[in-house]
Amino acid sequence: MRDKIVETLIAAVRLGKPRAIARLITLVENSEEAAKTAVFHLHPHTGRAHIIGITGSPGAGKSTLVNEIAKAARKQNDRVAIIAVDPTSPFTGGALLGDRVRMRELAGDKGVFIRSMASRGSLGGLSAAVTAVLTILDAANFDIILLETVGAGQAEVEIAAVAHTTLVVEAPGMGDDIQSIKAGILEIADILIVNKADRAGAARTTEQLRTMLRFGEQKAWPVPVLETIAVAPTAKTGVAQVMEKITAHHHHLQTTDEGAERAKTRIRWQVEQLLHRRLLKMSQRAEIEALWDGLITAVFHHQTDPYTAANQVFTKIIHEG
Amino acid sequence: MRDKIVETLIAAVRLGKPRAIARLITLVENSEEAAKTAVFHLHPHTGRAHIIGITGSPGAGKSTLVNEIAKAARKQNDRVAIIAVDPTSPFTGGALLGDRVRMRELAGDKGVFIRSMASRGSLGGLSAAVTAVLTILDAANFDIILLETVGAGQAEVEIAAVAHTTLVVEAPGMGDDIQSIKAGILEIADILIVNKADRAGAARTTEQLRTMLRFGEQKAWPVPVLETIAVAPTAKTGVAQVMEKITAHHHHLQTTDEGAERAKTRIRWQVEQLLHRRLLKMSQRAEIEALWDGLITAVFHHQTDPYTAANQVFTKIIHEG
Repeated sequence: MRDKIVETLIAAVRLGKPRAIARLITLVENSEEAAKTAVFHLHPHTGRAHIIGITGSPGAGKSTLVNEIAKAARKQNDRVAIIAVDPTSPFTGGALLGDRVRMRELAGDKGVFIRSMASRGSLGGLSAAVTAVLTILDAANFDIILLETVGAGQAEVEIAAVAHTTLVVEAPGMGDDIQSIKAGILEIADILIVNKADRAGAARTTEQLRTMLRFGEQKAWPVPVLETIAVAPTAKTGVAQVMEKITAHHHHLQTTDEGAERAKTRIRWQVEQLLHRRLLKMSQRAEIEALWDGLITAVFHHQTDPYTAANQVFTKIIHEG
Repeated sequence: MRDKIVETLIAAVRLGKPRAIARLITLVENSEEAAKTAVFHLHPHTGRAHIIGITGSPGAGKSTLVNEIAKAARKQNDRVAIIAVDPTSPFTGGALLGDRVRMRELAGDKGVFIRSMASRGSLGGLSAAVTAVLTILDAANFDIILLETVGAGQAEVEIAAVAHTTLVVEAPGMGDDIQSIKAGILEIADILIVNKADRAGAARTTEQLRTMLRFGEQKAWPVPVLETIAVAPTAKTGVAQVMEKITAHHHHLQTTDEGAERAKTRIRWQVEQLLHRRLLKMSQRAEIEALWDGLITAVFHHQTDPYTAANQVFTKIIHEG
């Protein structure tokens, strides 16, 4: 029954119908079977969209910058989808509120599709949903998909890394703290942006980031550090340069081996996430659940240890699988 | 051979010898077999330490506050271990630098053990190591273990949630951005701290956090919101109140069912992490690796889809397992 609905929606999605896209995304978020069916049918029609990941410190102004990028892309006549992901928030609060601001600016434009994903599922749950949603949007013929993550933890870094081009957005003065020098985040950046560049310390932050990048290996794509002021009421400084670099990076991926290499890394990550998800679901089946209770109590009372417990669950799964 | 070393170290760890503790932690970080052996032998001797997780936004001053808590705990004659975890950083930079500041303040005190874990391993890798390290420190008879995470993403939230008592540290002015209202983080807080309370906007941030907490359900433990100034040169404002609440929360856990319930949730999470780790390792075995290459290429060329690929790897693992 649900499969039937999914298949009907798929045809409409291929024609770019916004309501069908929205409905299919909802199905995919709530049902793994729906995600499986959608990806099975739509994966052959993907590979055209340019997926741009945007991550960085909270408060760096990512959403505002994403809106400006979307507006600039619309001026180039590109169809744009925006996905805002917050893996740490189980509630709707932040994501929905952010959406409302966004809707006000971009509403009514049929070339723009906006969606928030605020659910914090079990391990691998959100990432599986994100890749299914990207498949849907790619097959729906969007030219640009902006994948914005709210935080800057490992989950966000991984999600942003699903993109073809990854923008890391920072703001001045966040570098005061020794700890905020996040090597892991700089590592995934294809384009580094110092937003709120009218704030005190912008030049210093930019210089610091450039210095840190110089310590990295010489790459075929030298990561640019750009300054932007996304909220300026009159002029949106730097957004044009960001668009240029996005296009240049897209071209770089298409004209070198890097595009295919990255795609393969992404596929492996995606399949591994699905594997983990599968294991988690199997470990929650009734006959395994019965085992859990006894094992947890035994570990709690120090009668067994966690590794031995994990081993028993694993053996049972292999046996039942 | 390695097992022999681990077993020798275990005896010294039980006596609280700092060098044995440091060596065993290094072994456990680098070898899953060592972690398994250490946890197998030491898990029976755990359950005494009070594990305190500290998380929150970057730049909120977590490290400084952790140092103050450590000093206050030492005045109560508690033996203190500090573990600083940065799951997003594959390099040493931040963590090591932070350690040096810390060492200067707490060095030479034999009742303090300090360690950074900066490795970003594969999925579940770091969390498995963290729980093994907590087992070691608990069995080494530390009274208080301070588990500090650098970021505030999902991984950090999960790691902090391993603790008995979780402190979430924020700083004034970080609440400007709609997105920084992180429901997921407030959810795990047992004690909320507004650090840098001498900064502009502190009262507003405190009030906002109290309002947000009021929207939550009524709990047996009402989450307090405390203001601190951890870097004040003369007086460390608020640290005494934090210590009081930490003790009160510990008492709350021991006198209600919540302590046991949380411990069981923690055990389940821990065993699930080990399960995922196991699956990942199996998927990397030579006979499975051979399958990967072909499948990734097929997905890349749209000859198959990621779900079908995951299914094939899973079936192969079950078959070989």
